Amino acid sequence: MKAFNDLADFSNEEIRSLVELASRLDSNPEPEALKGKVLSLLFLSPSLRTLASFQAAMVRLGGGSFVISPDMSIHGLETRPGIVMDGVAAEHIREAVPVIASYGDAIGIRAFAERKDIASDMREKEFSSLIDLIDTPYINMESAMNHPCQNLADWKTMDDLGVPANGGKFVLSWAYHPRALPLAVPASTLHMAAKRGMDVTVLRPEGFELPEAIMQKAATAAETAGGSVTQTDQRSEAMEDAHIIYAKSWSSTRHYGDKINDQKLREQHLDWCVDEPWFANAKNDCRFMHCLPVRRGVVVADDILDGPRSVVIPEARNRMLAQMAVLHQMLGGQT
Amino acid sequence: MKAFNDLADFSNEEIRSLVELASRLDSNPEPEALKGKVLSLLFLSPSLRTLASFQAAMVRLGGGSFVISPDMSIHGLETRPGIVMDGVAAEHIREAVPVIASYGDAIGIRAFAERKDIASDMREKEFSSLIDLIDTPYINMESAMNHPCQNLADWKTMDDLGVPANGGKFVLSWAYHPRALPLAVPASTLHMAAKRGMDVTVLRPEGFELPEAIMQKAATAAETAGGSVTQTDQRSEAMEDAHIIYAKSWSSTRHYGDKINDQKLREQHLDWCVDEPWFANAKNDCRFMHCLPVRRGVVVADDILDGPRSVVIPEARNRMLAQMAVLHQMLGGQT
Amino acid sequence: MKAFNDLADFSNEEIRSLVELASRLDSNPEPEALKGKVLSLLFLSPSLRTLASFQAAMVRLGGGSFVISPDMSIHGLETRPGIVMDGVAAEHIREAVPVIASYGDAIGIRAFAERKDIASDMREKEFSSLIDLIDTPYINMESAMNHPCQNLADWKTMDDLGVPANGGKFVLSWAYHPRALPLAVPASTLHMAAKRGMDVTVLRPEGFELPEAIMQKAATAAETAGGSVTQTDQRSEAMEDAHIIYAKSWSSTRHYGDKINDQKLREQHLDWCVDEPWFANAKNDCRFMHCLPVRRGVVVADDILDGPRSVVIPEARNRMLAQMAVLHQMLGGQT
Repeated sequence: MKAFNDLADFSNEEIRSLVELASRLDSNPEPEALKGKVLSLLFLSPSLRTLASFQAAMVRLGGGSFVISPDMSIHGLETRPGIVMDGVAAEHIREAVPVIASYGDAIGIRAFAERKDIASDMREKEFSSLIDLIDTPYINMESAMNHPCQNLADWKTMDDLGVPANGGKFVLSWAYHPRALPLAVPASTLHMAAKRGMDVTVLRPEGFELPEAIMQKAATAAETAGGSVTQTDQRSEAMEDAHIIYAKSWSSTRHYGDKINDQKLREQHLDWCVDEPWFANAKNDCRFMHCLPVRRGVVVADDILDGPRSVVIPEARNRMLAQMAVLHQMLGGQT
Repeated sequence: MKAFNDLADFSNEEIRSLVELASRLDSNPEPEALKGKVLSLLFLSPSLRTLASFQAAMVRLGGGSFVISPDMSIHGLETRPGIVMDGVAAEHIREAVPVIASYGDAIGIRAFAERKDIASDMREKEFSSLIDLIDTPYINMESAMNHPCQNLADWKTMDDLGVPANGGKFVLSWAYHPRALPLAVPASTLHMAAKRGMDVTVLRPEGFELPEAIMQKAATAAETAGGSVTQTDQRSEAMEDAHIIYAKSWSSTRHYGDKINDQKLREQHLDWCVDEPWFANAKNDCRFMHCLPVRRGVVVADDILDGPRSVVIPEARNRMLAQMAVLHQMLGGQT
Repeated sequence: MKAFNDLADFSNEEIRSLVELASRLDSNPEPEALKGKVLSLLFLSPSLRTLASFQAAMVRLGGGSFVISPDMSIHGLETRPGIVMDGVAAEHIREAVPVIASYGDAIGIRAFAERKDIASDMREKEFSSLIDLIDTPYINMESAMNHPCQNLADWKTMDDLGVPANGGKFVLSWAYHPRALPLAVPASTLHMAAKRGMDVTVLRPEGFELPEAIMQKAATAAETAGGSVTQTDQRSEAMEDAHIIYAKSWSSTRHYGDKINDQKLREQHLDWCVDEPWFANAKNDCRFMHCLPVRRGVVVADDILDGPRSVVIPEARNRMLAQMAVLHQMLGGQT
C-alpha cells in the first residue's frame, strides 16, 4: 500500500480485510510488527485524536513516530510557490515536507481545506501540492474532502455494533455549529456509508446541500454495493427506521468561503441540535455517531452523548485500531 | 494495580516493594517488560520533570507514550458540566479524557487545584471529576492534595541515603516564594514521611498551618508506623537533630484563594530562605530536599543547592525510577 | 565516546568509520541496537531537522527520546548565575539541565550563540556553561561555533556523491539573508571540508570574513589532510573548477552584535543569491549544498534548488543517518 488517501481507492474486500486486521491487532497485539519503523507526522491543522492515536498506534506495533506541527518552535513555513522569501517564513514546504518525509518509512499529513474556492478544495489543491513533493508512502490524516482514517474507523464501529451493511439505514445529518466547518468528514462519511452498501440519507437545511460531485461519487459507490443515496431537509422522513444518525456540522455550500452569508444562513437553524425527539421514528436502538470534537448543547444534547445511544468513545478508539491496520499493511508488518 | 493516586492506599510493605523494584530496574534494565504498551499522558497543568521522566520511563521498559497538553494546537477543552458550548472551546473533557485514556493501557493525569475553596480542593473536586470519566488504570501526576510519584521518589531517596525510618527526623519547612503555590507537595510529603515512621515537624509561619485533616491523616499514619507529627514556627527547635529538611513554599491556609491577603502575609517572611545557619543544630550530614523547580536565592541559598547537603538531582532522577516501578506493576511487566 | 562536540576531536579515520557505520545502518537496520535506551533532547533554540531526525534516529535503533523546549508549558528557565529568582522564571538551568540529563543515557543540547560579543561566542560561553553542569555523554546539536552533526552528514553526502577528498574543490559561500545569522555552520563546515583534505575557498564580501582563529583551525586541519584554505570576494575565481558550492548566510564579523551596521552592510549585497550563472566556470556537475532552512529567491534561486545541482534533501536525510552512527557508538549499540 503506497497511499491511504480515499476509501474509493480500495475494494470492499480490501476494506473488510483492513477492518478484520484492526480487530485482530486489538485482541492479539503484535508489538514487534513494525520494530524500528518510523512514522513522520506532519500537522498543518490542529488535532487531538489524530495526534494521539497515531503515536499510540506506532508504539503498539513496536515502532515510533515524531510530530511536526506549526505551533512548535520551528521556523515558519512558506507555502506559496515562486515567492521571494524575504519575510517572516524561513523555510518553504518544498524543502520541509520532503525532509520530514525522508526521516520516516511513511508520512501522515493533515492539511485542511483553504475554504475560499469550493472547486479548488474539491480538487484537493492544498493536500495534492504537499503529496506531489514526496514519494514516501503516505496517509491522509484529513484533507479538504477526505478523512479516510475516520471512515475506516466508522466502518469498523458499525461492524462492531452489528449494523447491517445492505439494508442498514444511515442518516448523515447536518447540525448547528457557530463556525463554518470543512466538508471532509461529511463528504467522505457519506461515501463510506454508501460504499458499505447502506441506504444513506443526507439530512440538511437548504443551502447546505453537499456538492453534486460528492453526491455522485457516493451514488456510484452505493449502486455497486447495493445501497442508495438521497438528500432531504425533512427530519422525520429521514430518521424513519434509521440504524445510525451520524451528526456533523459543515459550511454552507451556497455561501462557501463567504463567512457573513454562511453565518446568516446557519443561524436560522439553531434548532438542529440532535436530541431524543429526533429518534421518535428511528429504530429503537438507533445509535449516535460523531467524529469528535463535538459541541455539547449545540450539535447534540448532553443526554444523547451521555446515554446509551452514543458510541462516540469506542468510535474514537477505533481510529487507533484502524490506523494500526493501515500502518501494518503499508509498512510490511510481519504477522 | 488499578490506580496510583495516594500512598495511603498502599501498605508500607507494598511501598517498600515498589522502592525495591525501582532500584532493581535501575541496576537491571528490563527493556522488554512493557513491549508495545502505551501510557497516555494528559497535562492540564505545566510540567518539566513529570513530562520528561514519564516518557523516559516508558522507553526504558520497552513501551511508549504520547503527550496531550493544552498548549498544543488542539481544540480548547471545556470543563464545566452542562454548558452550552457556543464559545471558544470546541471539545469537552467528557469526551476528551475518555478518548485519550482509550488509546493507552494506563493514563497519567496532572491537574492542579483550583485554589479558590479549600474544602473543594481537599475533596479533590477537579481531579476526581476527571477520574470519574474513565475506567482505565491511572496515575496521579499531581492533583490538589496528592503527588504520589514525588512521594515514592522521596521515600526511595531517603532509603538511598540511609536515613533511618523509625528515629529519623524529617523537617518539612515552608519557604518564601513570590506566588501562592499549591498544597499538594507539602500535604502528601508530610504524609509520606509520617507513613515511613519518621518524626516529622512541619515548620511554618503563623497563617501557613497545614489543614487539620491533612495533619490528622499524617498523624494516623505516624501512629501505625511508630513515628510522630508536630507543627511549629520555631526554626531552631524544629531543626534540632534533623536528618532531612524538605523545603517547599505553599499558600497561606488562613487566606486560601485570597491573593492579596496571602501576599501581604507571605511578604512578612522573606527571610524564610534556607541557608547554612538553619543547619546549626541539625545532624552534621543533614540533607536538603526539594521537589523542584526551586527558586534560587528565594526558597534556598545557592550554596546549599550547590553544596554537599543538596540531594535534589538524585531526588529528581528517582522520579523516573519510582514511576518505572509503578508502571511495571500497573501494566503487568514480565520480570 | 563521551562527547560529540566538534569534528576536530576525532581523527579522519574515526570520522570515516562513523560515515561507514551511518551507511551500514541505512542498508542494514539494527532495530534492537539501543533497546530501552533514552536520549534526552534539550532545545534552547528552535529546530525542525534536528528535532525530527534525532527522534527518528532513536526509534530506528530501538530506543526512544523525549524533547524539552522552552515553548512547552514548562516553567521559564533562568540562565544567569547567582541571581535572586524573584521574577518570572521558576527554574534555573543549574537544576533543569542536570535533571533532564539524568533521565537519559545521553543528552543532545542545542543552544545558539548570544551574538553580542564574538570573543565570548568563540569561547562557546553559552554552550560550555550548560555542559559544565552534567557528566552524561552529550551531543552538540548546534552551539555558537559548532554543528558537528551537520558536518558529519555533509562529509557523508560528499562521499555518497563521489566528490574527491584530496583534490576536491569546496566553495563555502556567503549569501544574502535579511537577518544576521550565527557562525556555527560556516565555521564548522569550513573546518569539515578542510579536514576532509579538500581545497576550500571561503567566498564572502568584505566585512564578512570568518574570524582569524576559525581560519587558522581550518588551515591546520587542511595541512594535516593535504588540502588548503583561502578567502576571497571574487566569485568567478572562487568557483573555478568547484565540485561543491556550500551556501550559507552569516553575520558580519566587522559589525558582530551590531544589528544596524550589520544590516546596512549586508543590504549592499542583495545580489549574493546563488543562481546558474555562478556555475559558469565550475565543474559541470558542481553540486549545491545547504544545511537548511533556506530562503528561496534570497539565498538561492528556485531553479537551482529544484534542479539537478541541489542535494539538499539527501543531505538533510544524512543528518539522521550520521546521528544514528554517533548514537550507536556513544550508547554502546550491539552490532
